[in-house]
Amino acid sequence: MNFPSKLIENAVDELAKLPGIGRKTALRLVLHLLKEETTETQSLSAALVKMREDITYCKNCHNISDTEICNICANPLRDRSLVCVVSDIRDVIAIENTGQYKGLYHVLGGVISPIEGIGPSDLTIGSLVERLTDAEVKEVLLAISPTMEGDTTAFYITRKLRDFKVRITTIARGVPVGGELEYTDEITLGRSIIERTSYSK
Amino acid sequence: MNFPSKLIENAVDELAKLPGIGRKTALRLVLHLLKEETTETQSLSAALVKMREDITYCKNCHNISDTEICNICANPLRDRSLVCVVSDIRDVIAIENTGQYKGLYHVLGGVISPIEGIGPSDLTIGSLVERLTDAEVKEVLLAISPTMEGDTTAFYITRKLRDFKVRITTIARGVPVGGELEYTDEITLGRSIIERTSYSK
Repeated sequence: MNFPSKLIENAVDELAKLPGIGRKTALRLVLHLLKEETTETQSLSAALVKMREDITYCKNCHNISDTEICNICANPLRDRSLVCVVSDIRDVIAIENTGQYKGLYHVLGGVISPIEGIGPSDLTIGSLVERLTDAEVKEVLLAISPTMEGDTTAFYITRKLRDFKVRITTIARGVPVGGELEYTDEITLGRSIIERTSYSK
Repeated sequence: MNFPSKLIENAVDELAKLPGIGRKTALRLVLHLLKEETTETQSLSAALVKMREDITYCKNCHNISDTEICNICANPLRDRSLVCVVSDIRDVIAIENTGQYKGLYHVLGGVISPIEGIGPSDLTIGSLVERLTDAEVKEVLLAISPTMEGDTTAFYITRKLRDFKVRITTIARGVPVGGELEYTDEITLGRSIIERTSYSK
C-alpha cells in the first residue's frame, strides 16, 4: 500500500504494531482522526502517554494501580484472609465485575510457558510466597485459566505452597450457566458430574 | 467495566472513541502497550499527533499531502488532461495501487447525503468546476461508489459540468474478475451484458 503522505504512513505503521490492527484498519483509524478535530487526536495521544509513563503496580498484589498500594489492597472491607491468584490484570477486572469476590488478589503477570520462554522466576510467585509468611492469609484461590500452561502454573504454585498452613482452592469447573449440556466438551461435563454440588445450594 | 486505575480508564475511553474499537478491545490494546516499552507508546502518540497537526491537503486536488501541491499533481509524467473524481482519499490509494491510472485526481471529501446533512457545498465540487476552466482537462472520470448517494453525487456533477467541453466517463460496472456469474446480483449482471466489450480487447 502506497500512501500519499509520509505522515500518514508513519501513523499507520505505528498503529499497525498494535495487536489485531492491520494496515487497512490502521488507515481507517487515521482517516477517522483526520475527520475529527485536532484536539481529539491530542487527547488520545496524551491519555496513552500519561497512562504508560505514570502507571504503577501495587507493591502488594502487582495489580495495576495509580498509587503504591492499590484500591483493593487498601480497602479495609476486603477479606485479608483470602488471596485470589490470577495470571493477568484482565482477570482481576473480570472477577471484580462479578461482584462475588471480597478477598484480595495476586497478579502473576502471566503463566509458565516454556515455548514463550516464561519461567517461574518471570512471574510474581516469589512475592506470593512472601505474602503467605504473613499469618493473615488462610486461603489461596487459584483462578487460572485451565489451559496446559495454566494448569502447569497452578501445579507449580501448589508445590511451592505445600509447607504453608493455607487452604488451596481452585475455581469450580463445570457447565457454564446458560450452556447446553449437548455442546459441552466431555472433560468439562465429566468434571461437572464428579464435582456435583447439592441442589439446595 | 470497572478499572483498577483512572489512567487505564482514560486511555480505554479515548481508544474506544475510534471506529470499530469497543471497550474490551481498547483494554486489550492498553494492556499490550503496558507490556511493551514506554518508547513504543511515546512514538505511537507522537506519530498520531504529528500526523494530525501537520497534515495538509493538496490545493489542487484536495488529496492528503505533506506539501502544498501533492506528489501526484506535481508529477510531470502524469496526464494532466484526465481528472479522476473520487469521494475519499482511500479511493485514491486504491486506484494508485492498481498502477493502471496515470491522470490526476480530484477528492470530493464525501458524497451528497441529505440524511447525514452533507450537501454539494460541503464537497469540493466548486473547486472541480474551477479546475475545468483550465483548458488542459479533456476528460473527467467519475470513480464514485455506485450507492444511492454516490449516484446522486455523480448525477449532480455531470449536471454541473454540462457547459464544459470535457468528456465525462465513469468506471466500468460489471462482473468482478474472478467473480462467479451465478452469485453476481442481477443489476450488475444486466449492466455487464448491456455494456459488453469486444473480446479482442
